Amino acid sequence: MATKIVLPEAELPTHWYNIVPDLPSPPPPVLHPGTHEPIGPDDLAPLFPMDLILQLVSEDSYIEIPEEVREVYRLWRPTPLYRAHRLEALIGGPARIYYKYEGVSPVGSHKPNTAVPQAYYNAKAGVKKLATETGAGQWGSALAFACSLFGLDCEVYMVRASYDQKPSRKAMIETFGATIHPSPSNNTQYGRSVLEEDPDTPGSLGIAISEAVEVAATNEDVKYSLGSVLDFVLMHQTIIGEETLRQLAMVDETPDVIIGCAGGGSNFSGLVFPFVREKLAGRMDPVIRAVEPAAAPSLTRGSYQFDFGDTGQMTPLVKMHTLGHPFIPDPIHAGGLRYHGMAPLVSHLHELGIIEAEALHQTETFASAVKFAKAEGIIPGPEPAHAVASVMTEAEKAKESGEEKVILFNLSGHGHFDMAAYQAFFNDELVDYELPEERITEAMAKVPVVSG
Amino acid sequence: MATKIVLPEAELPTHWYNIVPDLPSPPPPVLHPGTHEPIGPDDLAPLFPMDLILQLVSEDSYIEIPEEVREVYRLWRPTPLYRAHRLEALIGGPARIYYKYEGVSPVGSHKPNTAVPQAYYNAKAGVKKLATETGAGQWGSALAFACSLFGLDCEVYMVRASYDQKPSRKAMIETFGATIHPSPSNNTQYGRSVLEEDPDTPGSLGIAISEAVEVAATNEDVKYSLGSVLDFVLMHQTIIGEETLRQLAMVDETPDVIIGCAGGGSNFSGLVFPFVREKLAGRMDPVIRAVEPAAAPSLTRGSYQFDFGDTGQMTPLVKMHTLGHPFIPDPIHAGGLRYHGMAPLVSHLHELGIIEAEALHQTETFASAVKFAKAEGIIPGPEPAHAVASVMTEAEKAKESGEEKVILFNLSGHGHFDMAAYQAFFNDELVDYELPEERITEAMAKVPVVSG
Repeated sequence: MATKIVLPEAELPTHWYNIVPDLPSPPPPVLHPGTHEPIGPDDLAPLFPMDLILQLVSEDSYIEIPEEVREVYRLWRPTPLYRAHRLEALIGGPARIYYKYEGVSPVGSHKPNTAVPQAYYNAKAGVKKLATETGAGQWGSALAFACSLFGLDCEVYMVRASYDQKPSRKAMIETFGATIHPSPSNNTQYGRSVLEEDPDTPGSLGIAISEAVEVAATNEDVKYSLGSVLDFVLMHQTIIGEETLRQLAMVDETPDVIIGCAGGGSNFSGLVFPFVREKLAGRMDPVIRAVEPAAAPSLTRGSYQFDFGDTGQMTPLVKMHTLGHPFIPDPIHAGGLRYHGMAPLVSHLHELGIIEAEALHQTETFASAVKFAKAEGIIPGPEPAHAVASVMTEAEKAKESGEEKVILFNLSGHGHFDMAAYQAFFNDELVDYELPEERITEAMAKVPVVSG
Repeated sequence: MATKIVLPEAELPTHWYNIVPDLPSPPPPVLHPGTHEPIGPDDLAPLFPMDLILQLVSEDSYIEIPEEVREVYRLWRPTPLYRAHRLEALIGGPARIYYKYEGVSPVGSHKPNTAVPQAYYNAKAGVKKLATETGAGQWGSALAFACSLFGLDCEVYMVRASYDQKPSRKAMIETFGATIHPSPSNNTQYGRSVLEEDPDTPGSLGIAISEAVEVAATNEDVKYSLGSVLDFVLMHQTIIGEETLRQLAMVDETPDVIIGCAGGGSNFSGLVFPFVREKLAGRMDPVIRAVEPAAAPSLTRGSYQFDFGDTGQMTPLVKMHTLGHPFIPDPIHAGGLRYHGMAPLVSHLHELGIIEAEALHQTETFASAVKFAKAEGIIPGPEPAHAVASVMTEAEKAKESGEEKVILFNLSGHGHFDMAAYQAFFNDELVDYELPEERITEAMAKVPVVSG
């Protein structure tokens, strides 16, 4: 009974998968925030090094992972794929459940998969410092880790509410030698403008992005780094799915249902894009499902249109499922899923009908995560707890119907930094926020109308 | 450049190593707390299932690991051995540094190596519940995890100071379905007696042990479980060293210096006992060093004599290096090293001159741990930070002397639950407590004089 399926280190994938050339229709262009015209590589040069910009426009299906990046990946990769025998036994029925576990990375999540190449390409280009935002702190920790390995300075803008609530993440980021500021801060023009209007604002990811982008755009030596949404971020994460394909082949399994949680969309894409390739090529036909929080339901309740990635309207306009860039989600514990938009590529796949989506309230996700932890011994982060809940419902359905379903999901990180959220669950203190339609309508009213 | 040395899962060791038969002289007997006569298996029956008691008296050098235990071990084992290339580059000089990393377990430390077999043997014997103590929470989390996998109830007595300071550990223990009480508690006669004397006591590991032992001794269905000190605990941990021996052989290396931190002695023993075997057999000749905190310096400043394992004088008397069972160490952040005694087998090895010991203050250990984290990407727990500091000093010495030393150490767990301690270090708030000799003398005055 092989519970853990180990991919030999020699089989660590050598390439990331670029889904764009394989799509049945090309994704919409990225537009300049001022002119609303499609942008070119030069427009992005103040923010990113050319190697990363070229990945954004590449027409190659596979992009080689530099050996310097693979060397760091090998610190924790290949990650294990687990057969959830104990969870299956708990639920009963014929479903076979597999999960890819990204919590074994040094910072406990999938985020280093892109932090490491981003730090590498920037260091290679002679950049001195990276500026970034972080919500709950997963991404900030990952980038601080990656920058310390490649000798880059790192400046993290952390949403103030999380900065105050999660001192452990702050300390972790500082241990890796990065500097960290609660956002909004007085360091940036945009931050000062927000503070002037509301000195007690808890901040938001959209505000923190604006600050980090401003720092990069206004300092020669500084570039911007982000942990989700953008095409190259999603591509770096495909190492997850490429490994998983090989691991499932080792046990001769083909998934019927593939599930991932989705906030910005990076862990979801990382697992599913290689499977989308297989599906489009007719080699398998899985249902592929993104699970988002009911408090930030961009795929299930947002509009598919051009919008900014940040609150300050500094980023390019991308076509995506959005709740409106001024939208601030209620304070659910899955901080990594609290974003107003969805990655353009994930949005495009949803629009094409290749993937489906559902939204869950947090109490259900924690209830499932506790059952999972007791059965499997691993405590899920609040974000992948959304995937866990959907998987358990799927397995229950298979039990009722008697269908021998193979269910695969991404356990994108552990919950060791989120035990306060579990405590709140045990104390019956979790709130399942209802999101009135007006809040979305109000935020969407501020989204520019752009054809395309 | 192989940074991570991966032992194939098929080579997971099949046996634990029992060092006792190989020792040049037999360890002293264990004595009854009342009669001071050597105890037999029956005396321990109220506390432990017979399978574990038989391991305590076994004369076999190798004890087979049950397949049920190996199946759980495989969730995270074999653990990686890393060559610390980046740390070596930071220090410079000819030392080659290797570390075994036990932080990949589901609870982030080496503790499940013994929690799992203890839960297994108790479940096999029909026991319904395990009672245990925990200091910083590492052990309590590990036993709660193991009990949830084998369907046992689990009751954890957590030192009150840690219970109040580490809500994350409490939540983690509860997530695995265990119940947890701050110690001293009103649940036990001993707890009530301590509270009567000092209602505001912060508690201590010695007090918590007394409470857990009392619960087991006075309830038919409940047994006691502990995470260090006792021979079988140390033996279960030898899976660490057995794997490491195989991994070093894969890269054709023999260690010149082996270092582990030591509180009760379990992670240290787990790594070094198989190497002590090799040393005693003349197959290698490493220096083997236990690093303890200056705030609880049992090996370096304690006396080698019979003493109780707990404050309430309920445990058997064991011959060990002790600061006296009433000794309460100052509140250093390495909670896992705050114990008045040292494992009898480790004490015996020290007495025989087979291992050496040193004591370090905490500021030095955190300073080294931060350097290690920046170089290697992994944040050490405050306990193995003691080993890290000693390793770095050793590597500096090799640099001065030009000696091509191979240094091996046990990175027994990550520091993700201890980031507040790192924050205190950054804020210059760490105290390096001086331990006046009188405090040891006072505590030792209450140790019974027993010949043997």
